[in-house]
Parts: sequence; C-alpha cells; structure tokens
Amino acid sequence: MLFACLGAHAEAGSSTPASVLAQAPAAAWMTPSPDDLLVMDLAGGRRVVILLAPEFAPVHVANIKALARAHWYDGLWIERVQDNYVVQWGDPTEKKPLPADTVASPPPEFDRAASGIALSPHPFRDTFAETVGFASGWPVAEEGGRAWLTHCYGMVGVGRGNAPSTGNGGELYAVIGHAPRALDRNIALVGRVVTGIEGMTALPRGSEAMGFYKTEAERLPIVRIRLASELAAADRPRLRVLDTSSATFAAWVKVRANRKDDFYVRPAGAIDLCGAVPPVKEGE
Amino acid sequence: MLFACLGAHAEAGSSTPASVLAQAPAAAWMTPSPDDLLVMDLAGGRRVVILLAPEFAPVHVANIKALARAHWYDGLWIERVQDNYVVQWGDPTEKKPLPADTVASPPPEFDRAASGIALSPHPFRDTFAETVGFASGWPVAEEGGRAWLTHCYGMVGVGRGNAPSTGNGGELYAVIGHAPRALDRNIALVGRVVTGIEGMTALPRGSEAMGFYKTEAERLPIVRIRLASELAAADRPRLRVLDTSSATFAAWVKVRANRKDDFYVRPAGAIDLCGAVPPVKEGE
Repeated sequence: MLFACLGAHAEAGSSTPASVLAQAPAAAWMTPSPDDLLVMDLAGGRRVVILLAPEFAPVHVANIKALARAHWYDGLWIERVQDNYVVQWGDPTEKKPLPADTVASPPPEFDRAASGIALSPHPFRDTFAETVGFASGWPVAEEGGRAWLTHCYGMVGVGRGNAPSTGNGGELYAVIGHAPRALDRNIALVGRVVTGIEGMTALPRGSEAMGFYKTEAERLPIVRIRLASELAAADRPRLRVLDTSSATFAAWVKVRANRKDDFYVRPAGAIDLCGAVPPVKEGE
Repeated sequence: MLFACLGAHAEAGSSTPASVLAQAPAAAWMTPSPDDLLVMDLAGGRRVVILLAPEFAPVHVANIKALARAHWYDGLWIERVQDNYVVQWGDPTEKKPLPADTVASPPPEFDRAASGIALSPHPFRDTFAETVGFASGWPVAEEGGRAWLTHCYGMVGVGRGNAPSTGNGGELYAVIGHAPRALDRNIALVGRVVTGIEGMTALPRGSEAMGFYKTEAERLPIVRIRLASELAAADRPRLRVLDTSSATFAAWVKVRANRKDDFYVRPAGAIDLCGAVPPVKEGE
C-alpha cells in the first residue's frame, strides 16, 4: 500500500504492537470500576471518557465525582483549545456555586509518597526524572521517595490559579500535544482520556491568549458529565485497559521500542514513557 | 486570573520564555530564504507555512520544490488525519504523473553525515539518542557519525511505501501529536510547519484505518502550494526563526527547563528536545 506509509504490516514471523495485543490473555486487561469512569457528553454527539486516578489525587478526584453526581458540569463549556498544549473545560466565570460536599481548597496533590505504588520500571531513560515506569495503568515518575503522574498526551488535570490550592475541580484540562512534562508536580493530574479524545482534539483552536475562545458562541457546550456508575448499563462505556504489570504490557513496550514491521528499516531501540501509555480496548 | 492556569505571568524579576524572546537582539532571529518556505493554501482560507531543510534531505526537498513550481499539488487533498500522530496530504491515488524534473526514487535520506552539522548540544538527556541538539534551527540527533532530524510536533516528512526509496514527494505528512521518535531514521524528514499548523491539527480525524478519511467528500482540498519565492512580495509570509546558535536560544532553553513564573511551584530542571523546538515570530 504505497504511501500509506505509517502503518503496521507485520513481517512474516515478527511481532507488531497490534499482534502482541491480539495475543494477550483476557487476564492482562483490567476492567475499570464504573465509579472511576467520567463520561462527558459534548454537543454534537461527541463522547469523551476519562479514567480517574483516585490513588494519585484523592481529594481532587472526590471533588470531581461530587461535581459529576450533582450534575454540576451540565450546561458548561469547553472554552479553551490551545494548539500543542491543552483543551480546558468547566466554568470560566468561576462563579457557579460548588455543591456542599466539595472541598473548596484541596491540598496540592501534585505528587504523593512513592510507598504504596507498585512501579513496573520503564526500561528506557527519561529526560525529566531518574526513575519512570507504570503503575496500575498509569505513567509515573519517581524520585526522592515521591511519585507522580506525568503529563502525557491525553492526561487530565485540574486547572488552578497561581495559589497551589485553588484547583477545586470546576475547571479541568486534557493534554492534546507533545507531553508538557514541565507541568509535572505543578498541578494535580487526576486521570486520562481513554476514549473519544478526538471529540476535543479536532476542535477549532481559540484565537485569544492561551487558546481561549474569543466569544461565548465559540464555546462547545457540555451536555452532561456523569460517572459511568450513574448511567444505565446499556449506556456505560465498555472498555479495558492493559494491565501494566502484565507480561503482555512488557512485551508491547519492547515491540514498540523495536519495530520490525515491514515499513521500518531501523528499529529505534527505545521508546519514551509518554510514547508507551497503556492501550485501551473498547467494546468488551 | 484564576483557572487560566497554564499561562505565563512573570514573577517580579524572573525571566519567562516570553520575556527572553522579547529581549532578543535582532541578530538572534534568522530570516528564512523564500525559496525554502513552502506556502500551502487550503480550502476555507487556511494557510500553512512549512520551512524546508535542504541540508538534511536535498533530493527529497528538490523534488518538493519541483512539484511546487509545477503547481502539481494544486487541487489535491489532505486525506488522512490520525489523532496523536500525523496529518497527510498529496495524491492518494498515486497516479498523478510527476514532472520530468523530479527524481522518481530518491535515495533514503533518513540521516546524513554528522560532519558539516554545527550542533549546539541540548543540555538534557534524550531517550532515543546519545547526543541531541539544535543546528540551524532544527532539532537534531547524532550518533556514530550520523545526524538526523527528529520527529517533533510539526515536523514534516515524505510519505513512502515499504521500500525505502519510494517517497517521491507526492505525499507529505506533518506530526500532530506526541513526538513519534521511533520514526526517526526510517523516513525522510524535510522540514517543519512554522505557522498555521492549527489549519491541519483541528481537522476531523479520519474514521478509516490509520486515520484516512472514509469518503472523498471528507478530504480537504489543497488550493495551491507555492514556494514563497513564487509569490508576490505582499503575499509572502513574513517570519523569523530563532537562531539556535544564539545566546538567546540557550537562555530560552534554560528558562523553559526552569520555569519560575508565578504559576510554577517546582521547576522541572529539564526540558526535552521536542519540548524546545525553536520559536518562530511572525509579522516582521
């Protein structure tokens, strides 16, 4: 298929990322709790599903769940799309009252104790941290007894002001460009987009500073945000995330670092942390 | 500005990336030759400008220039948009005859001799190569006497089939996601998008395998592609690229690695190669 240049056609006998996943045992796939899946229905029928990471930012995640349960996000907007950086949504007016069961000033959960994190080390060096790897499906960096989620493509965080404890969950963002790792440990990451990111990445970029839309008419309305556990069974996302402690994940990373598909003439010999964010499969 | 969380507000006395650039002497900005600027006018008034890198892939770049001079791309399409990967454009039919002054099977210019490249080393480690840095405004990796352009966000390459010398320039792609560095040395990079990338990144993703559009109607027509040198002076892009051998560029990299704007509570202490692609300024 000439010019379909960036695809994966397996050489006879060689593994590809896709073939490794196709051979994964069922046990290698984790089924997220429906209470950790945030389902965001946007105007125009776009659905974005976010997997939450309560073990990394428990207070922030509890706030987001409380806001979802209160249907607080419904009728708000995506109001910022900055190319090669982030999409941001929520209440840009900062005036919508928060439900009583949210914490107005969450602690700065920008990192956490490394103890209690079962890190599968990533076998290639990282620019930003001495140790990186994956834990429970998350890309993680670790140093000096602290561990933190990293700003890879699709990761979701809580917008805040300059004061560290001003991120109450009323504004969220997702990374839509090259991993802005300088944000690591400066803001609370709470999860990642696991399906439907194209519902946000293909939006027009905002023309104002930092990608904010100039007019309210440009904003994309949020129809509703719900926890999957609140949805009828038939309407819940059906997806699984590859278990990063599985042999399949290790094999997948190895193959991604050493592509021998027909197209490749020189395997890279490495893959970076954000180039190996765990795959998700839908429909099962 | 609460929740405008990812901006840059300078602490009194501290430098920001923007303040470093604002203080750059005029000599720190390079003006590209209009013969190395490819101006792509897309349907809907979108203009994308690509700076070519003839020193890295001379035969491929000569082909692209010949195709532009022949107005060969006019009326073709963007036919592929794959989320977190690439946008691709040109002739998906592979049947449009090439002008006589193009090379049908260019050599695999996937890397080149490192001699002759004046690399300013990047001061932080890279996952993929022992040595990385910048040369003449380009992100470059170097190893074993060879040097090559790296697949950072916005970089432009020449689509090819599985045989290495099948990339004649009739299909081009741009990176629109996290840097897919495993492609380095596997395909000819020929330049990068310097302005207007949002004209491609905000397009709908294709629903077919590898992000190809399912129907011809979904394709975005290319109105014309011209070298800037072919355009009337008033219609030429006016832009400059920061000289990567300048003191300003070194200072900018340092500040990007050590953000001390009001928002940041913990400077990263590093920035990766693709996080430091040289800035471009327009309008001068």
